[in-house]
Amino acid sequence: MNEARQPGITCQLRVRYHETDAMGIVHHANYLHWFEVGRTEYLRAVGMTYRSLEEQGIASPVIGIRSRYHHPARYDDPIELETWVQAYNGVRLTMGYAVRCAGRLLCSGRSEHAFTDQGRAVAPKRSLPSVHAILSACALADLPLADKADRA
Amino acid sequence: MNEARQPGITCQLRVRYHETDAMGIVHHANYLHWFEVGRTEYLRAVGMTYRSLEEQGIASPVIGIRSRYHHPARYDDPIELETWVQAYNGVRLTMGYAVRCAGRLLCSGRSEHAFTDQGRAVAPKRSLPSVHAILSACALADLPLADKADRA
Amino acid sequence: MNEARQPGITCQLRVRYHETDAMGIVHHANYLHWFEVGRTEYLRAVGMTYRSLEEQGIASPVIGIRSRYHHPARYDDPIELETWVQAYNGVRLTMGYAVRCAGRLLCSGRSEHAFTDQGRAVAPKRSLPSVHAILSACALADLPLADKADRA
Amino acid sequence: MNEARQPGITCQLRVRYHETDAMGIVHHANYLHWFEVGRTEYLRAVGMTYRSLEEQGIASPVIGIRSRYHHPARYDDPIELETWVQAYNGVRLTMGYAVRCAGRLLCSGRSEHAFTDQGRAVAPKRSLPSVHAILSACALADLPLADKADRA
Repeated sequence: MNEARQPGITCQLRVRYHETDAMGIVHHANYLHWFEVGRTEYLRAVGMTYRSLEEQGIASPVIGIRSRYHHPARYDDPIELETWVQAYNGVRLTMGYAVRCAGRLLCSGRSEHAFTDQGRAVAPKRSLPSVHAILSACALADLPLADKADRA
Repeated sequence: MNEARQPGITCQLRVRYHETDAMGIVHHANYLHWFEVGRTEYLRAVGMTYRSLEEQGIASPVIGIRSRYHHPARYDDPIELETWVQAYNGVRLTMGYAVRCAGRLLCSGRSEHAFTDQGRAVAPKRSLPSVHAILSACALADLPLADKADRA
Repeated sequence: MNEARQPGITCQLRVRYHETDAMGIVHHANYLHWFEVGRTEYLRAVGMTYRSLEEQGIASPVIGIRSRYHHPARYDDPIELETWVQAYNGVRLTMGYAVRCAGRLLCSGRSEHAFTDQGRAVAPKRSLPSVHAILSACALADLPLADKADRA
Repeated sequence: MNEARQPGITCQLRVRYHETDAMGIVHHANYLHWFEVGRTEYLRAVGMTYRSLEEQGIASPVIGIRSRYHHPARYDDPIELETWVQAYNGVRLTMGYAVRCAGRLLCSGRSEHAFTDQGRAVAPKRSLPSVHAILSACALADLPLADKADRA
């Protein structure tokens, strides 16, 4: 993990046709798919792929979702997805997301995660020291974004 | 709308294979699809189909989602989905959901909705009197469920 | 398996909102989800659930899909889905599907399947005698439907 | 359209978690979503976005799909998607697709398309001269790929 990196990471997406619905806009459930893309790329950016965690038997199931929809996205819109660590207490992780198009905030969200090792619930601070070290550093680095989101 | 009906409505679903993910469980975004099925059947049960609303140019876009995942669902699980009006203030509607399998609560959620008429934001209490009358009656009838969910 | 049953089985579905796209109709990929529902219910109807096969380590991966789209389906349309065994040669299985709304054919399709046991490719006629017996009987019972579909 | 371009176009995708199913692999219906991404990028590469066509009231609904699944894709796999015009006769368009990971062919497919203008079926060669000119040029440029696919 690059100590000098900016807080959070940003991905570029393009709205796929099948992600729209009969309202002509992106169906609200599909933003959760994008959040997941954001998590995947976030972990890759900090040097730990979710795929490699899974290959070691570690998983991070979603236990809660919150999202607010401010403006709709449409087919072929170029999407900017910002992802950060909103909170991490050694047991549970909350990721934060902001979805924008042309600088306009379309959707903001959070996902809360537990951790399992070989199918058993674990606290990273006790059982997954390397995961804990990375997430702790991320939480610290992303504090400016998390603070801003909390006040939003 | 039957005045003597029980609060809320219940639908039966069966988990579809494509709704699962590589964890072997239903992907968390798919519960939002089920919530939508619940809304569709709720409105049908109270005498107003969402399709007929759309045909009149009325829509009820999702502006917020909250969901908590308690236990996973698996392929072919028989699902019981309870849907009710959690809150309605004449402008915004909040629906509540409980997803169960064999009596066990898997997921609880809420969706918040605005209203539009011919693409323009409207308050049902001012602009959609028949929608307002039905939703007000539903909010009253579902108060016992909404209260229970609020304390949860 | 009831020897006197009619060829094929029929399921009732209702189009879900998220299954539509910005054209206002059901996205063509979602018919493949319905085909899968048809397979699940077909196997249940002939006394062998796909879930129980999976629990024994048997899988039936899709190796080919063909579908023709004749007319669109829309949100909340009541759908009638007919599923049958189109062909079975002891090694590969082809299922056939017809999707209708109010008697009108919307989509016809086929899926071709291989078989695996504990992750290894197998021929049911050699390695899965009970699966082979059921599918052979199904192929015979569904011959009238398969013939009709082949001439279509 | 660059006259010197190579036949077909290639896109890079990354398998998203929600695209997997309980078999641990990408669900077969999701390849159709990728084909659609390929079409979108193909049209953009030849100077005509599908979004701009839709804004003019032109659509190109899918009337048939064929796909063969050779090897599975898994979460986070980097995917190479090749898209070309397989056939175009002035009325109907067939697009061809090859999905690869690390050079290995995972899936090959075709989609057949009709054309509509303001909701009415049309033949581009008669009613949409600029679309017809571009697709005719594409069919010619992609002939080497289409020929190779036909012999496969």
